[in-house]
Amino acid sequence: MAVYTHLGAEVLADLIGQYDVGKLVSAKGIAEGVSNSNWLIETTGVDGTGARFILTMYERRIDVRELPFFLGLLDHLAAKHCPVPATIHDRAGNAYRDLDGKSVALIEFLPGVSIDEPTPQQAHAVGQALAQIHTASEDFSATRANDLRPADWGKLFEQCGDDAIAAINPDLLAAIQSHLPTLIDDWPEHLPKGTIHADLFPDNVLMLNDTVSGLIDFYFACSDIAAYDLAVTHAAWCFSDDGTQFHSDISKGLIGGYLSSRSLTPAEQEALPILAKGAAMRFIATRTFDWIDTPDTALVARKDPMAFVRRLNHYDALGQNAFHIPDQTANG
Amino acid sequence: MAVYTHLGAEVLADLIGQYDVGKLVSAKGIAEGVSNSNWLIETTGVDGTGARFILTMYERRIDVRELPFFLGLLDHLAAKHCPVPATIHDRAGNAYRDLDGKSVALIEFLPGVSIDEPTPQQAHAVGQALAQIHTASEDFSATRANDLRPADWGKLFEQCGDDAIAAINPDLLAAIQSHLPTLIDDWPEHLPKGTIHADLFPDNVLMLNDTVSGLIDFYFACSDIAAYDLAVTHAAWCFSDDGTQFHSDISKGLIGGYLSSRSLTPAEQEALPILAKGAAMRFIATRTFDWIDTPDTALVARKDPMAFVRRLNHYDALGQNAFHIPDQTANG
Repeated sequence: MAVYTHLGAEVLADLIGQYDVGKLVSAKGIAEGVSNSNWLIETTGVDGTGARFILTMYERRIDVRELPFFLGLLDHLAAKHCPVPATIHDRAGNAYRDLDGKSVALIEFLPGVSIDEPTPQQAHAVGQALAQIHTASEDFSATRANDLRPADWGKLFEQCGDDAIAAINPDLLAAIQSHLPTLIDDWPEHLPKGTIHADLFPDNVLMLNDTVSGLIDFYFACSDIAAYDLAVTHAAWCFSDDGTQFHSDISKGLIGGYLSSRSLTPAEQEALPILAKGAAMRFIATRTFDWIDTPDTALVARKDPMAFVRRLNHYDALGQNAFHIPDQTANG
Repeated sequence: MAVYTHLGAEVLADLIGQYDVGKLVSAKGIAEGVSNSNWLIETTGVDGTGARFILTMYERRIDVRELPFFLGLLDHLAAKHCPVPATIHDRAGNAYRDLDGKSVALIEFLPGVSIDEPTPQQAHAVGQALAQIHTASEDFSATRANDLRPADWGKLFEQCGDDAIAAINPDLLAAIQSHLPTLIDDWPEHLPKGTIHADLFPDNVLMLNDTVSGLIDFYFACSDIAAYDLAVTHAAWCFSDDGTQFHSDISKGLIGGYLSSRSLTPAEQEALPILAKGAAMRFIATRTFDWIDTPDTALVARKDPMAFVRRLNHYDALGQNAFHIPDQTANG
């Protein structure tokens, strides 16, 4: 959301000098990243024709001990030609460095823009790219526990307290009380797991026309249920922001794109409604916590948890019909 | 300081389509500009080899009626080969357009980085570039009144109130009471006037090694005393941030660079101490006002007005000796 640290030109030029990327030409702090500072860096490039990078400084939330997982995952996926930015290693081979006591990483810059109102074709490409990273990460050996699983949502709500939750909206508390116990008890732990992005909102996808040019911001990536990642992406892409409108053409495109690259087992298909309700609850949990944690007067816009209560209710009402799994037996 | 408005990819692509600059490839909100939103835009370029621009959306403070002055000045100076970004005009010739009820302008992107700790050579280049815009704007016909002149500083202090000012620091109130009346009474209105930048802090100068590649952020530019602009730049560049250290080598470089391109009349030279005290008071005024106007809890870092009280005291103590005007009679 901001640049939290000032980095002078001299410090930046020294840092860039540790990499084999040419000399520093330009650096602009960019307004991206929830808990990092980011700069768009331009250098002369190795061959003098210019090159661009994203420099990320890890400010908080991200545990430095997890950087090898995040940065190693980018390298693994980029090597398999997934549309993700590769980590640039310094001359000594390090994926990240220390700068004034904070960790920094230099990441490949990818072209593309984030889409607000996707077409079905674009949703298809997003689904396909998501399946592609699921498949490509099957032999990625590092693991990272998901710290936002059903029991963790419960802990966040406990920290908020029922009164504070009801004060935001009584329907919010009712939705949590009505659905959370079932989600915790019936969570489909038996489904195939792998490395997932876990936060693939439109902000985190760069597109050039109908092509995905970049999946970015892997700092929620973890080892968890693959089909849950599809459910998160479905909740993120197939509704109007406020959750009042469901776009079935986008849903069809997204699911179709995913299935064009990775099939879902019958058990995965069957679990989509509970996974999607869980995906909605995961964002209800963090949005509710942040709502209570953020003062009214803060400059940061708070995100309404009710937008995901509406998604939860939609998934609850439609069940399997919220998804658009082509009848595979007809083709089989 | 931030991006205040979300612009979707579709809206941006439409906007860029109004200009003859190729197609949109990438857009990153950048963390610059005090009262504007800014994006670093990449396009395919007219010839397909890529081009970059800054898109500025004018959010507040800036009166749209003043845009022809600001943007016209950039065009005037760029045409005279000053290191300033040219305004890109749309196909209909407009320097700015309306987008969702706000004005936006597309500006040339210039390479370079802002220097924290300039060398004397760099300060020389900055002084020379400042003189260059003073000379190049002599035949710029548009004018804009400076709305931060000595009487305006007084009005800002009145709005703050003596008690609130003394609560920041009693020395702050004492410095204002001791110097403001003289500055108002003796302000050298008779000196040569022209178009000035009026805010040439290191943030607003892009450099590539010892060369000035860009002077940016002309949104305080106005018609006022040319030597006052040199005094502002001197106060901005020749001290440590907190005003406790004066760097005489930077002062020599800056003044020497200015004089290498534009001479100062004896009256201008003689007035430098009062102009520099005025420059310090101008930033004391806005920093004091902003300090009181910004809640403690805001995420925006407040800038200490005492840093400019220290500069004011330095100029008051050293008088003419704070500047380093070479003895021109020796060469004359």
